[in-house]
Amino acid sequence: MTRCKFLLSAAALVSCGTLFVCAPGRADEGMWTFDNPPTKQLQQKYHFTPTQQWLDHVRLSCVRMNDGGSGSFVSAHGLVLTNHHVARGQLQKNSTAQRDYIKDGFYAATPDQEIKSPDLEVNVLQSMEDVTARVTAALKNAKTPEAEFAARKAVIAEIERESQQKTGLRSDIVTLYQGGEYWLYRYKKYTDVRIVFAPEQQIAFFGGDPDNFTYPRHDLDMALFRVYDDGKPLDTKDYLKWNPQGAGDNELVFVPGHPGSTSRLDTVAQLEFDRDVALPARLKILKNMLGVLERYSALGPEQARETGSQIFGIANSLKAIEGQYQGLLDKNVMAKKQQDEAEFKAKVMANSAWKAAYSGAWDAIDQAEKKATTRLKEQLYHTLNSQLGGLAANIVQYVAEIKKPDGERLPGYHEAQLDSLKFRMFSPAPVYSGMDIARITGALELSLAEVGPNDPFVKIVLDGRTPKEAATALVTGTKLADPAVRRKLVDGGESAVAASDDPMIVLARKLDPMRREMVKWLENNVSSVAQRAGEQLGKARFAAFGKNTYPDATFTLRLSYGQVQGYPMNGTKAPYKTTFYGLFDRARSFDFQGPFYLPSRYMENRDKLDMSTPLDFVTTNDIIGGNSGSPVINAKAEIVGLIFDGNIESLVGDFVYDATANRAVAVHTAAMTEALRKLYNAPQLVKELLEQ
Amino acid sequence: MTRCKFLLSAAALVSCGTLFVCAPGRADEGMWTFDNPPTKQLQQKYHFTPTQQWLDHVRLSCVRMNDGGSGSFVSAHGLVLTNHHVARGQLQKNSTAQRDYIKDGFYAATPDQEIKSPDLEVNVLQSMEDVTARVTAALKNAKTPEAEFAARKAVIAEIERESQQKTGLRSDIVTLYQGGEYWLYRYKKYTDVRIVFAPEQQIAFFGGDPDNFTYPRHDLDMALFRVYDDGKPLDTKDYLKWNPQGAGDNELVFVPGHPGSTSRLDTVAQLEFDRDVALPARLKILKNMLGVLERYSALGPEQARETGSQIFGIANSLKAIEGQYQGLLDKNVMAKKQQDEAEFKAKVMANSAWKAAYSGAWDAIDQAEKKATTRLKEQLYHTLNSQLGGLAANIVQYVAEIKKPDGERLPGYHEAQLDSLKFRMFSPAPVYSGMDIARITGALELSLAEVGPNDPFVKIVLDGRTPKEAATALVTGTKLADPAVRRKLVDGGESAVAASDDPMIVLARKLDPMRREMVKWLENNVSSVAQRAGEQLGKARFAAFGKNTYPDATFTLRLSYGQVQGYPMNGTKAPYKTTFYGLFDRARSFDFQGPFYLPSRYMENRDKLDMSTPLDFVTTNDIIGGNSGSPVINAKAEIVGLIFDGNIESLVGDFVYDATANRAVAVHTAAMTEALRKLYNAPQLVKELLEQ
Repeated sequence: MTRCKFLLSAAALVSCGTLFVCAPGRADEGMWTFDNPPTKQLQQKYHFTPTQQWLDHVRLSCVRMNDGGSGSFVSAHGLVLTNHHVARGQLQKNSTAQRDYIKDGFYAATPDQEIKSPDLEVNVLQSMEDVTARVTAALKNAKTPEAEFAARKAVIAEIERESQQKTGLRSDIVTLYQGGEYWLYRYKKYTDVRIVFAPEQQIAFFGGDPDNFTYPRHDLDMALFRVYDDGKPLDTKDYLKWNPQGAGDNELVFVPGHPGSTSRLDTVAQLEFDRDVALPARLKILKNMLGVLERYSALGPEQARETGSQIFGIANSLKAIEGQYQGLLDKNVMAKKQQDEAEFKAKVMANSAWKAAYSGAWDAIDQAEKKATTRLKEQLYHTLNSQLGGLAANIVQYVAEIKKPDGERLPGYHEAQLDSLKFRMFSPAPVYSGMDIARITGALELSLAEVGPNDPFVKIVLDGRTPKEAATALVTGTKLADPAVRRKLVDGGESAVAASDDPMIVLARKLDPMRREMVKWLENNVSSVAQRAGEQLGKARFAAFGKNTYPDATFTLRLSYGQVQGYPMNGTKAPYKTTFYGLFDRARSFDFQGPFYLPSRYMENRDKLDMSTPLDFVTTNDIIGGNSGSPVINAKAEIVGLIFDGNIESLVGDFVYDATANRAVAVHTAAMTEALRKLYNAPQLVKELLEQ
Repeated sequence: MTRCKFLLSAAALVSCGTLFVCAPGRADEGMWTFDNPPTKQLQQKYHFTPTQQWLDHVRLSCVRMNDGGSGSFVSAHGLVLTNHHVARGQLQKNSTAQRDYIKDGFYAATPDQEIKSPDLEVNVLQSMEDVTARVTAALKNAKTPEAEFAARKAVIAEIERESQQKTGLRSDIVTLYQGGEYWLYRYKKYTDVRIVFAPEQQIAFFGGDPDNFTYPRHDLDMALFRVYDDGKPLDTKDYLKWNPQGAGDNELVFVPGHPGSTSRLDTVAQLEFDRDVALPARLKILKNMLGVLERYSALGPEQARETGSQIFGIANSLKAIEGQYQGLLDKNVMAKKQQDEAEFKAKVMANSAWKAAYSGAWDAIDQAEKKATTRLKEQLYHTLNSQLGGLAANIVQYVAEIKKPDGERLPGYHEAQLDSLKFRMFSPAPVYSGMDIARITGALELSLAEVGPNDPFVKIVLDGRTPKEAATALVTGTKLADPAVRRKLVDGGESAVAASDDPMIVLARKLDPMRREMVKWLENNVSSVAQRAGEQLGKARFAAFGKNTYPDATFTLRLSYGQVQGYPMNGTKAPYKTTFYGLFDRARSFDFQGPFYLPSRYMENRDKLDMSTPLDFVTTNDIIGGNSGSPVINAKAEIVGLIFDGNIESLVGDFVYDATANRAVAVHTAAMTEALRKLYNAPQLVKELLEQ
């Protein structure tokens, strides 16, 4: 029910499942799986056909940044290019009150200066296998949606576990076409990922929240990591060659990356629910969270540093969701959705076999949506919004779940998921107590206002205290900020957790039955029904339209194609690129006020820069949240740019793609080369990027 | 029924009458007459009160450019600053196939190099006198709207004639508050106006049609004239001091100038008529005209030069009217209009005296509008769209009209108007035959399609020929391109005109009865009714709301106040100013393609420029077509900028003013100073501007 954009949040990685299949691709539309690239469209419009070798090379050159973004290998020695805003979580975790890598940037001139990311996992997709037949077979004897749900869950866990044990690779089942297909994706997983370079946040995010999700744009939103294997820089066989010339106007370009979630073919009832219930509620919660963090941030420079990444992420989500919400309020968008659904329904109804098998699905989804609404407030307001509280809940559930058969565990605790989970649970990254107190206080105040003092969640958490008192007692009392304490509890198993008097653990134990009941209730009343109906609609769509299409986004590797191209904007034209001239213009135009000042490096060295150098550019590629950090490549698979955003007109892209003005925004390779060379004195890095 | 913007067309000067009074001014709203400045608002919001001396000085420093724009004196020696696009008509008329002053610009380094404008009249407002009582008294005995109309026309002509004979000054009656007040405005009139400086059109109109009516903007849309009196530069006692620093962000600024026409308080019925009938028809006709001229322009470089100004003007009108049209399609705009009207009506209805006197006005206007519609096609499609045809019509009507009593003449031929009319009729400016053939052909083809071959106008003009044949025969046969021929006919009077076998004169004679009948029919059935109803509504508004307000625009001197201020734009913020950096950015961003290339002077001398110099800026001032060339002044009455456009959000300003995003766009004095000094090598000019 919630959406997540450009940079995915960790929570979103779990919640952003996808349900529905997409319409046949129109102009440059689509986030295509690598097993089903849009060869026909590419041939027809661009007279280009990617070879299998091209596809394999691109796939193996791309990485998923598991804290919510994308990236690509850009040298033979494991160098990974992504966005500053994808790296900022790791930069934050390496920063202290004395050294602020987000604000000041970071550059390791030599390998020994590179710093380790505490909890960044990077994945490279090794193979994809269609396991639809096996999943479908496992559901054959299930009579009810609930039985189907359990059987599906069990067989998925089984396939993942088997694959992981056999290959040693991270193995994920991916639900495509809302259950029309199930695929086993196997990844090489890297957890020794070191920070090599990041510019100052002020140039990475020049223009701040106002310019976010807009264009023309002037950001150097880049960062470089290096992946290590066995303590040595990874010997990267597949990487993208650096093309500092970039791509010309109207040139064909591709974006391989990891779009997180789309809802292109949600039913009209689902969209209306989003418009009338889910998005307004989400906006309200995010505004509350933003207010809480801004007030905390205002307390001092250290508080501001601590909250920087959080505020960035929430403001980013707010602007994105506001754009989606406005999109759904647009009568033209809704009318198009209604028309598409009417045509689809008419096709299904015209065939008696399809009608019998699939026609109940729309109503079933509508009913599931209505059912979910009956307990919406609990879903929205039974939360502490706390980092420490989240860790406590993980620990309490972990020790219980791992004792169960794999197929019966709560989502997130299956055998194949445990390595990645433990990597996050035992992260040495700092926990900011003051911020956590502020977050919990804010969340509890909102809960109190929304569900009242007699709500069981509120009663358990507050236990007679004010929100602030409860938050302070919990955070100052807990020892969970220390990863060794967390590890000890987990190692001690159920008895250690049961015996703990850590207040966060105690609270997590008390809340655990309530949380489990909600998961179960949602599975039995909502997810099971929606998944079955989703599968029916997926099959109906294959039956009616064939598989000449792409599935909704699932934070798995996709290929989008398009052109470098300006667009009509606010009465005039937006150009296909911007230049350093534009950066200095925009800074001066605002008298360097607010988010429009320039780092001193830029002011002092501007005469060294070739002002004509392209800085950012736009393409028609169809992308969405999670694509942050994706490379833009040309037909020779050379890297020509770095996706970091979409324009304001693209925010409706969760629901529809409109080539008129939907644009992906990227940093130009020429700007990255020019800046590394002239401003950051990083000749080794430039040499490594350019040596082919 | 038609609207005209920023730069008024000559036809618009006649047709853009105003009918309705405006609502009490809100934030920075209003185009205030100098007899009724917004002192209360200025005091409340800005703690500034203009003195009478300040008002007089500003008024006498401002000029009306009678071909449709505004300007101001900026030196003690008659130097007038206005826009390149206001000057372009005169630049065009001084250009030939060998020297293109529009494209290449012009600079007179010494007085003897200054070139004369063939038909530019410049007016300076000397005094304003309220003559409402005299006009009202003259209507006292009239029983019908027609009788009122005739009496009003007669007394207005009488007052104007008397004043002109008494003072020697140009004397115009101005209808304010839709007839709530009548004022006598007296102007000093100058017709020896020489061109001193104009930059290349490519920098004056950088970004061309796409960037027109938008912001951020990068135009040096300036030109300098010098007014001569008795063969010597005018000794300007009142002129605006040049402030090259400009105004800061949020600074209070004023725009004194000549807004052409607004319809802020048209009735809802009138707006619906505009939305559903008038504006779509006007867009259709303009698109046709643009197509005709573009095809002609494509024939060669000389044709392109000839049509340049026309195409600029039509494209400008098209974009402006499209913006107005979209504004009327905006349901929020219409809802606001309906609400305002409902409140106004309710006030009138609640007072029995007002109800008796005024409540019939809305219906009367609605009926007049409906009546006009019955002969709409004749009004729209009985036209040759021809420069020579227009001159012929003027000559045929002139010789007949001047024999009548002043008060009974056709509009435009009253005694007080004759000097200005003759100045235009006998202008030595070139007439382009090829273009006129193209224009007539296009107009006749459209007439044929819209009113058919049996329409009397079409039959008279075509006389069995195709549109192209008729146009060619008329233009190649006429001698009217020679101003001496025109003068001879006029001097010969009715008998000379009756005896002429010049085909344009012959045609004008044949069409004359039809044209007179239409003028008469419109007077009797539409204008007389609408004027009477307009006066009623004007009085009703004074009664209900008092005179704490400003009248609709009438191409007479007005004062608007506001602030230098950016605004929310397309998801982000538009800055309050742009810089030369931005100019070079935008040019490079489009690879210098289309309307985004730079004159060679700019490419070759860019290292001389301080790129940080402010180029254009935006203010909240309420302006409209006709304000082009108006100065932007600070509270000290120093000139800080030069109005040349409004942003795309301001196009709805014909109907409503919304301070959120309605912005006037101006050239910054710093950019003009920098360019004159560093790029145009005009030190004398800079010296003259800066010497105070």
